[in-house]
Amino acid sequence: MNSDKMHNLSLNDIRISDQFWTRYTGLVPKFIIPYQWDILNDRVEGAELSHCIKNFKIAAGEATGSFAGAIFQDSDVYKWLEAMAFSLQTNPDGDLERLADEVIDLIGRAQQPDGYINTYYEINEQCKRWSNLVEGHELYVAGYLIEAAVAYHDATGKDALLKVACRFADLICRVFGTGEDQIHGYPGHQEIELALVKLYRKTGEKRYLDTAKYFIDERGRSPHYFTREVEARGGAYLHEDFKDYSLKYAQSHIPPREQRTAEGHAVRGTYMYAAMADLACECGDDGLMEACEAIWDNIVEKRMYITGSVGSSGHLERFTTDYDLPNDTNYSETCASIGLVLFSSRMAAIKRDARYMDVVERALYNTVLAAISLEGDRYFYVNPLEVWPASCMDHTSKSHVKPTRQRWFSVACCPTNVARTLASLGQYIYFRDDDLFLLNLYIDNHTEDLINGCHVSFSLKSSHLIDGKSELTVNAKQPGTFTVGLRIPDYAQGYTITVDGKPMHPTVEKGYALITRRWDGKSRIGIDFTIPPRFVAAHPDVRADAGKVALVKGPIVYCLEEIDNGENLASIIVDPRKPIVEDCDPDLFDGTPVLRCAGKRISNENWDAALYQPAQFITEPVELTAIPYCLWGNRTPGEMLVWLKASV
Amino acid sequence: MNSDKMHNLSLNDIRISDQFWTRYTGLVPKFIIPYQWDILNDRVEGAELSHCIKNFKIAAGEATGSFAGAIFQDSDVYKWLEAMAFSLQTNPDGDLERLADEVIDLIGRAQQPDGYINTYYEINEQCKRWSNLVEGHELYVAGYLIEAAVAYHDATGKDALLKVACRFADLICRVFGTGEDQIHGYPGHQEIELALVKLYRKTGEKRYLDTAKYFIDERGRSPHYFTREVEARGGAYLHEDFKDYSLKYAQSHIPPREQRTAEGHAVRGTYMYAAMADLACECGDDGLMEACEAIWDNIVEKRMYITGSVGSSGHLERFTTDYDLPNDTNYSETCASIGLVLFSSRMAAIKRDARYMDVVERALYNTVLAAISLEGDRYFYVNPLEVWPASCMDHTSKSHVKPTRQRWFSVACCPTNVARTLASLGQYIYFRDDDLFLLNLYIDNHTEDLINGCHVSFSLKSSHLIDGKSELTVNAKQPGTFTVGLRIPDYAQGYTITVDGKPMHPTVEKGYALITRRWDGKSRIGIDFTIPPRFVAAHPDVRADAGKVALVKGPIVYCLEEIDNGENLASIIVDPRKPIVEDCDPDLFDGTPVLRCAGKRISNENWDAALYQPAQFITEPVELTAIPYCLWGNRTPGEMLVWLKASV
Repeated sequence: MNSDKMHNLSLNDIRISDQFWTRYTGLVPKFIIPYQWDILNDRVEGAELSHCIKNFKIAAGEATGSFAGAIFQDSDVYKWLEAMAFSLQTNPDGDLERLADEVIDLIGRAQQPDGYINTYYEINEQCKRWSNLVEGHELYVAGYLIEAAVAYHDATGKDALLKVACRFADLICRVFGTGEDQIHGYPGHQEIELALVKLYRKTGEKRYLDTAKYFIDERGRSPHYFTREVEARGGAYLHEDFKDYSLKYAQSHIPPREQRTAEGHAVRGTYMYAAMADLACECGDDGLMEACEAIWDNIVEKRMYITGSVGSSGHLERFTTDYDLPNDTNYSETCASIGLVLFSSRMAAIKRDARYMDVVERALYNTVLAAISLEGDRYFYVNPLEVWPASCMDHTSKSHVKPTRQRWFSVACCPTNVARTLASLGQYIYFRDDDLFLLNLYIDNHTEDLINGCHVSFSLKSSHLIDGKSELTVNAKQPGTFTVGLRIPDYAQGYTITVDGKPMHPTVEKGYALITRRWDGKSRIGIDFTIPPRFVAAHPDVRADAGKVALVKGPIVYCLEEIDNGENLASIIVDPRKPIVEDCDPDLFDGTPVLRCAGKRISNENWDAALYQPAQFITEPVELTAIPYCLWGNRTPGEMLVWLKASV
Repeated sequence: MNSDKMHNLSLNDIRISDQFWTRYTGLVPKFIIPYQWDILNDRVEGAELSHCIKNFKIAAGEATGSFAGAIFQDSDVYKWLEAMAFSLQTNPDGDLERLADEVIDLIGRAQQPDGYINTYYEINEQCKRWSNLVEGHELYVAGYLIEAAVAYHDATGKDALLKVACRFADLICRVFGTGEDQIHGYPGHQEIELALVKLYRKTGEKRYLDTAKYFIDERGRSPHYFTREVEARGGAYLHEDFKDYSLKYAQSHIPPREQRTAEGHAVRGTYMYAAMADLACECGDDGLMEACEAIWDNIVEKRMYITGSVGSSGHLERFTTDYDLPNDTNYSETCASIGLVLFSSRMAAIKRDARYMDVVERALYNTVLAAISLEGDRYFYVNPLEVWPASCMDHTSKSHVKPTRQRWFSVACCPTNVARTLASLGQYIYFRDDDLFLLNLYIDNHTEDLINGCHVSFSLKSSHLIDGKSELTVNAKQPGTFTVGLRIPDYAQGYTITVDGKPMHPTVEKGYALITRRWDGKSRIGIDFTIPPRFVAAHPDVRADAGKVALVKGPIVYCLEEIDNGENLASIIVDPRKPIVEDCDPDLFDGTPVLRCAGKRISNENWDAALYQPAQFITEPVELTAIPYCLWGNRTPGEMLVWLKASV
């Protein structure tokens, strides 16, 4: 492989046709965007109020009233617009585009003459702009505006929103920096950094890259800006939750480039690490890359759930310490898994290393999908691996854990984040540079591109999730030499590769099997991974999982639900030496494979009213059915469990 | 048994000589009272500040400055004084009594002319008396003043503090009630109710009983006083923690007599249930007793830890739901176990039923003792059953869990509560009425009393914790007929009883073996309980304990500590069919029995950096040493575990 920078393909060039995925991605234009539009306009009965569009109208002087919602409420509109933009790239839709244009016009009218835009501050506290970076989220919201603007320009070529975004970005570049007349602060919630890199890539304006770099370089320097800011207002916080604030919470305890472990609020962290990876790549900054590598290793080797989620502490939604992965009180925010996808996919492209894509795949197939119902109208914010609904009570330590998906949230970052992630799924399937084309995810698709001036189409047909088999058809309309790389997932116990039926033994570099040849006309690459279902254990130092196993097949983590296996799932014990049987029931999730195995259940037949009695375990045999974790909670509500007790 | 009311003996008449207990009770006059006096005066380096005595001096006009500490800070002084009073009953000490008298004088000088006393309101907010019953704690603090006053009068016959208490109680009786000019409220934190019953019993003044009854009867009536109070001040709370307030939190969701389950804040609850039992008894109120019985059953059969602690939720320190007993995130506040002792001991006396004493014993021997270090200078507020110190981080869901005892707390209700409980331990050993004398706890002691005009002494010598044997010497100085009852603990697997060496087979009524005879001179009652060490399981519906066992012998719950068993206690598995060996090592906690058993440990030798890998458990045999739970944390800090994984 050469050292040219890898990049994603344009979404315009990719069409996903995967049966498993289109169940979700197909919902985006048909249901999710319209549904979320209704939400943003407070037209969904029984849902938490959004007030988003109303806020913009008030800020634009076109409605009266006061601001409502979270201080970062505008970001929901921007993320919805970004999802819309991604969707328009693959599913052009005149009606939706007209709607988007109307919203963009409204946003433009709400912008201040100097470029500032944030309805909370415009409506409420004009004079206090930038005064509360710890909590204020202005830069975070700005980041989403910028990302939406870049995506909408990619989708439509229209620049109205891009102009809004650039005006605001220009203001931010003037306001923040090391100059004497500039604020030496940085965002309380990271996001602007990666957005400014995107805007730099879109416009070529180096000031955007410089300001992104400034935000990372200044962060965590002593004396700490946040400490001074809070002291300057007498220690007061706007939000009660912030009374327990610490510099680590926002990764501002030490400069990012000195950080080696994932600390603090998991969304803030993963977004920042993604931006650090971007900057390391753009600036050739080895020190920053070293930090990214160490932090990523720390997450994946010590602080990540098997479902690709992060954030072990319900309180403050944050990373805690190595191997601390409780399954029922964790936060595991949907947005943090998306943040992990953002970080890991950047690392994969920069390092050309498939192990980073293993984590992207893990997060996408498990936590990100679990966050949305099969109908697309309900969402999880928090993604535990063990749920006992009776114990998820309001006003207790588990009040953050919802045993069923919700229509919306008063803080609603996750649903729109899921929407934009689904709408842009295609970007993770391939990476490419001039003469290398890497296939990352075995998701059926068709794409066309120019490689070395040669017009090539790629078509993937796969039953990867069922039997590990895929066929990639490479159609070189003019003959040309280039390399096709196939990701060998970490869970593949073996594989065979053929080209036009002939076995191949390509070299594998950093997890990609590389096939370099002169491609001419249609070639069929057959890939057959051995991915049997199996029991997986966590490192024994994970106290919460010691002596337990999870059922896994390929990228999919499975779980037990009460509806299939009766109540009190914690009383079930499986023998990991026994066979796991795969089964497809067309009446159960359209034939998505389920796993069955034998186990035993601790009986309560020898118990009377006593809570404690001499130990004597009576067990009864049980036949267990496990479904993909991402599908839990789509039927009758009840208990759910990923980590099962094992006979050790 | 007849239906006369049972009562405790006066502490003046009991001397405890028990080797296990005097290690703690002996500390009270020698160390704990002087240490806590230094704390109350902010003279202990490295301890959280108390400011208690300073507050009283400021309120008395004898010092300047502002109030500091929690709104209920005064209660620490009152509980310290009550501990002092109990101590003086069994260990007269002129110096300590003089110190107490000085403090009592100070309290008197801080009292307002109309009887009101509460330094927070006197110093801070004179005009806002009684305005914030939800949070204000005035009635809670008043309750401790009254209890201290009654105890000090019992101890010394001096009435200075009793007069202060009565003046305040009289004011409270005037201010609160159903009259038109009275406040129709009730305390945000219960305590005054049981204190007023005590004051009634001490003085015979029925208004105290009536007001206690009023507080219970009015509570939870609709429209809810608390709701109206909070609405009246625009929904604002003094404390941030109260933002998540609900009526259930303070057991004010429905009237107490309609309650059947233990809900809300565990200390508030148990204190209220204790008062309800008092009132049911004093007023012959069967409806209230029915509620007490149902709530007690609910706690003991579904919501109590094996260590006799309650309060499953770290957030809001509260009861949650049936069988929800997480071991590492729970609150299990020391004061709540003391509340359970108060409630259960009252129920035992009223119902003459030993099963209530089983719970008193469970709480005393485990959580209450665990709350204090062997030196008496450090305390636990929160009492988990599983501690992994690295995960008990500030700013996370487990920030309330301290892996080591603390010198003091900014909210310091527990240490003084432990002090008064230890100082008054003797009250739980016996109950009596005219001709019945019940021995509850097998704690070495000597007591003298009049029974049917007959002067009798009782001396208990016991090795109950070692071999289940006790001898109770009854010395009737004049011959007389009465009944001696011996509690048969729930954990006794069998027993023999002899009188002067001759086997007896007394009838057992509600857990007491009753020996009725004409006692003349010295008689020796021999009691030999079969209490082998054993593995105990929790009801299988307790998800957190499913497939696990605890090591128990008699009233003592055992635990593993890292110092004896290595790190990662969660990776240990025991076979409950294997033998448990008792061992006394004079170098380990002065020969307190420890338990040893064989187990196996899941090895991490087959692990590299991966966090997840195909399940293959390698185990290695381990010899385990378990120490009494109450003694954990007295050596090198480390992990602790009560519930061990079992081979099922």
